Amino acid sequence: MSKVRVAAFSVSLEGYGAGPDQSLQEPLGRGGETLHDWFVPTRTFKKVHGESDGTTGIDDTFAARGFEHVGAWIMGRNMFGPVRGDWPDASWKGWWGDNPPYHVPVFVLTHHTRAPVEMEGGTTFHFVMDGIEAALKRARHAAGGKDVLIGGGASVLRQYLQARLIDEMHLAIVPVLLGRGESLFEGVSLPELGYRVTRHVAGEGATHVVIGRT
Amino acid sequence: MSKVRVAAFSVSLEGYGAGPDQSLQEPLGRGGETLHDWFVPTRTFKKVHGESDGTTGIDDTFAARGFEHVGAWIMGRNMFGPVRGDWPDASWKGWWGDNPPYHVPVFVLTHHTRAPVEMEGGTTFHFVMDGIEAALKRARHAAGGKDVLIGGGASVLRQYLQARLIDEMHLAIVPVLLGRGESLFEGVSLPELGYRVTRHVAGEGATHVVIGRT
Repeated sequence: MSKVRVAAFSVSLEGYGAGPDQSLQEPLGRGGETLHDWFVPTRTFKKVHGESDGTTGIDDTFAARGFEHVGAWIMGRNMFGPVRGDWPDASWKGWWGDNPPYHVPVFVLTHHTRAPVEMEGGTTFHFVMDGIEAALKRARHAAGGKDVLIGGGASVLRQYLQARLIDEMHLAIVPVLLGRGESLFEGVSLPELGYRVTRHVAGEGATHVVIGRT
Repeated sequence: MSKVRVAAFSVSLEGYGAGPDQSLQEPLGRGGETLHDWFVPTRTFKKVHGESDGTTGIDDTFAARGFEHVGAWIMGRNMFGPVRGDWPDASWKGWWGDNPPYHVPVFVLTHHTRAPVEMEGGTTFHFVMDGIEAALKRARHAAGGKDVLIGGGASVLRQYLQARLIDEMHLAIVPVLLGRGESLFEGVSLPELGYRVTRHVAGEGATHVVIGRT
């Protein structure tokens, strides 16, 4: 069955999905790159980057779930890039180079109109101006029975959670402190929305928690 | 060397040290008792309650650290009891019965004057009206070279952290969602205060994280 999922979303001990002061140099904010310390050594990550080695433990098992049975992605504009406001031109095409690791349609939430951008390897970025429900409708259609992954950031996840539109959310709780950042949990009462922890497994570099609806 | 420590302070995935609506019936707030699910089965907890069984794994190892080399405790008034405002009488003597599990002097932060209360087993509750630094000074003196433990709750820990008075803080990250509650991390940037994660170990029922000063 097609699900709406969050996979491998990393948060600090404080619940921050990114550090402060996101920029071109630091897409995950100051100190935020440490959120991916558990992910970078995995075979799944290495494979995405064309390498054949990497760890194959619990962290890798959870990392791999972000790439299985995925038909479309949704992400916020800040996850797509550092450009704010009107798109000055069509030059920014994401952080991921000519061949992004998605290989499916990606719907980018934005308030500013822009034509789709077709990349190598099957990824096409579509820009959705009419909100999270419209984006999900388009993503579901594009996914053709496969899952829709909501990539982030934290504010996008909070919006989808509050609308009860996420079926399953895998978080990697990373043992780092960022100090300041965007909280995934602030102002969102997951139990009151019907969510609970369905699974928790200690990995090599993070604690993996799966949150589902009761 | 004498340290100022936090030991076995449990937080939910959202960083809450207690749930909402603390009361006589629910000292840790609504749903908050689940924060102790990792602690209750341990040999350390059982021993405190006069029982001789209990688990002896990683959770127990960390639980035991809260009782080793401890010369005095400090806690906030809400951790001491549900009474607010002026003390109506001397009847409330903590949650823990006639023989509390401290067996050392305990300094309770309050704005309302009250005479010390001597309990069985070596615990005496002292009420400190002149702030966290005065309480620590008295606790250090009483501890006689042993450690001072700051018990909580979250707001008391935040105050001591912001004053950089805590040497080591052990948190048990519990895989539960409370929805609402008192955040340990909100408004406190631990890295900017010189704190970092020095150790993290997956236990049976919680992930144990030790935070120290660099």
